Amino acid sequence: MATINDNYLKLKAGYLFPEIGRRVTAFAEANPDAKVIRLGIGDVTEPLPEACRTAMIQAVEDMGDRASFKGYGPEQGYAWLREKIAQHDFQSRGCDIDASEIFVSDGSKCDCGNILDIFGSNNSIAVTDPVYPVYVDTNVMAGHTGDANEKGEYGGLVYLPITADNHFTAQIPTEKVDLIYLCFPNNPTGATASKEHLQAWVDYARSHGSIIFFDAAYEAFITDPAIPHSIYEIEGARECAIEFRSFSKNAGFTGTRCALTVVPKTLTAKAADGADVELWKLWNRRQSTKFNGVSYIVQKGAEAVYAPEGQAQIKALVSFYMENARMIREQLTAAGLAVYGGVNAPYVWVQTPNGLSSWDFFDKLLQTCNVVGTPGSGFGAAGEGYFRISAFNSRDNVEEAMKRITAAFKQ
Amino acid sequence: MATINDNYLKLKAGYLFPEIGRRVTAFAEANPDAKVIRLGIGDVTEPLPEACRTAMIQAVEDMGDRASFKGYGPEQGYAWLREKIAQHDFQSRGCDIDASEIFVSDGSKCDCGNILDIFGSNNSIAVTDPVYPVYVDTNVMAGHTGDANEKGEYGGLVYLPITADNHFTAQIPTEKVDLIYLCFPNNPTGATASKEHLQAWVDYARSHGSIIFFDAAYEAFITDPAIPHSIYEIEGARECAIEFRSFSKNAGFTGTRCALTVVPKTLTAKAADGADVELWKLWNRRQSTKFNGVSYIVQKGAEAVYAPEGQAQIKALVSFYMENARMIREQLTAAGLAVYGGVNAPYVWVQTPNGLSSWDFFDKLLQTCNVVGTPGSGFGAAGEGYFRISAFNSRDNVEEAMKRITAAFKQ
Repeated sequence: MATINDNYLKLKAGYLFPEIGRRVTAFAEANPDAKVIRLGIGDVTEPLPEACRTAMIQAVEDMGDRASFKGYGPEQGYAWLREKIAQHDFQSRGCDIDASEIFVSDGSKCDCGNILDIFGSNNSIAVTDPVYPVYVDTNVMAGHTGDANEKGEYGGLVYLPITADNHFTAQIPTEKVDLIYLCFPNNPTGATASKEHLQAWVDYARSHGSIIFFDAAYEAFITDPAIPHSIYEIEGARECAIEFRSFSKNAGFTGTRCALTVVPKTLTAKAADGADVELWKLWNRRQSTKFNGVSYIVQKGAEAVYAPEGQAQIKALVSFYMENARMIREQLTAAGLAVYGGVNAPYVWVQTPNGLSSWDFFDKLLQTCNVVGTPGSGFGAAGEGYFRISAFNSRDNVEEAMKRITAAFKQ
Repeated sequence: MATINDNYLKLKAGYLFPEIGRRVTAFAEANPDAKVIRLGIGDVTEPLPEACRTAMIQAVEDMGDRASFKGYGPEQGYAWLREKIAQHDFQSRGCDIDASEIFVSDGSKCDCGNILDIFGSNNSIAVTDPVYPVYVDTNVMAGHTGDANEKGEYGGLVYLPITADNHFTAQIPTEKVDLIYLCFPNNPTGATASKEHLQAWVDYARSHGSIIFFDAAYEAFITDPAIPHSIYEIEGARECAIEFRSFSKNAGFTGTRCALTVVPKTLTAKAADGADVELWKLWNRRQSTKFNGVSYIVQKGAEAVYAPEGQAQIKALVSFYMENARMIREQLTAAGLAVYGGVNAPYVWVQTPNGLSSWDFFDKLLQTCNVVGTPGSGFGAAGEGYFRISAFNSRDNVEEAMKRITAAFKQ
């Protein structure tokens, strides 16, 4: 008899976004005339930059001629893209990252999950709370946790609360953890990490032989020049960190699909016999065996991001969403709500008023304002009492949503 | 201390294609004037069908307008593509497969490896020998095997030899196996499976509660109308089989990246408590959590395959490669070699002459004819004494390669 991976049965059935979808659909069916505005999921809305489109059309045309046709590409990505990424995203900031350490992929979500393939099953794992659910769920699937308790916390994971009480800065653990997920600018809280805070994490990781999974999917939204964009801006990070990046949010690639993972060649972890094994070699083997590279056409689109026109266009795109974030932040504050984030991140993290639970506030906002956000408790137990509003939408929708919320909440 | 997945250390360092690359590079450096023809790797060479290119250019343009812009799509693929696949590839052949059972992905290689995520670690696993190395290597990585012996066979796997002695038809095992990998038309031998043979497998799987992983990546190359294209043409397969398909070989998508996996909703496997669990739900959860869907642009290209022009164009593409296969088969036969396959598959499987080992024949062909093929032993111990020649190349290259081989081998 074939057997299943029983760990899947530990997963809570009501994943956050399907549950939101269910409630919104039910509301829309009961209120067919309501114009619902969705500021829930972090999905971009504005057109793909022209530079990317031009490059992709050229790439499709390349495919029409035997001489320029591309079959299987390197599983790690084309050298011309890896080199531009290494140069523009890392070397230009003083990060000692080589093109060969860049692995181009079809998504950060995939990479964040797949990276566990190369690690042992006996590692202790730390996540912030609230947290991007994929980090937790992929560990559950891989059998790294026990069951969930009534708050949704899985046994065996170390949860590091990030709330207004600690200024959304996770305390460095006193216990030993082997794998640490950090996401800055943070999804969902919009918080950032200073150089000093990241240095403390890197120092911890190096002294404990831990590996940091650093998710920098939102680095393009940093406006404060003092805040690091990459973990490799921190001394010693090449010895302890893997970084995830994406074209989804800076260049609007959520539906086009391109991302990258950086695995420095100086990174090692322990084999059962105590030997130090290069993680780069394992990840390279993993990707060569279980992945076949990103579409040539999409990689050409990603490359165009680094040309001067591409750089100007993604800068304008990021500025557009950040202006949305500023409006959301200021108008919710004026309406009397306590808000965080939204300065160096496209997410505004709202404290629910009057002690409402996250889901009660969700329902209230949906019923009263016909606006959809994301309940903070969906990101973890310590997200209870918070609510995420995304700046990824049209200007009209943001303006209209803020008008409705102001009318409903302003005393 | 973070630890690695020690199973990776069991993998043999010299993966087949890198070793071929190493030898070809060394030869080319020593013989800079030699015009090497590569009939090794199964990569397509001809332009992408015009229908696909036209659709992709339109899709890129859709991305340039806010109204038609596409962000995150369904992780399972767009309904318009899943419906066309279900209808054209399955329902039209009498297979009872619904669009909701189709999962669009970025590659069959990925799916063949990732599918193991949803299965338990205690399943016994059968592969044919020779076999597509990804099936074996992903099981090694997942910890489903012991170490490799000197022939490259991993402990714990059940190897089912397919050679000229048994007409390349794997014998149904007498022992119990839970997961069975079948690939027809076969890579690397070019053999096919009759309806009766597949029925025997399905009957075995149903009576043992086993699951068949059916890789149909080469189904478009079937010329004999009696040979099934899908495992679901076999009575009872909905209860025991997952099928993998790809646009790589029929539509030339090796560099464009689109594939699909079929998981019928009637398929179950056992949980530890003995309950029957629907595999569709587990795979859906796996894909929703660890994958973010295929690029909208690429899915539009795949959809165009099903339009009348697309159908005509891929038919011409397949015929082109099959004419190559016919030439290879006939000319190698005329040169006195024993050849198999190449009738319903783009691979010709050659018995090495004079008892040469697969690698010795590789070296001889490279040195004498400057032609690159793939040593059969790279696909498994029972592939020793065989050699794979791929029909994926230009007509000129195939003609020139055959001329050289004929001159070298004809007595």
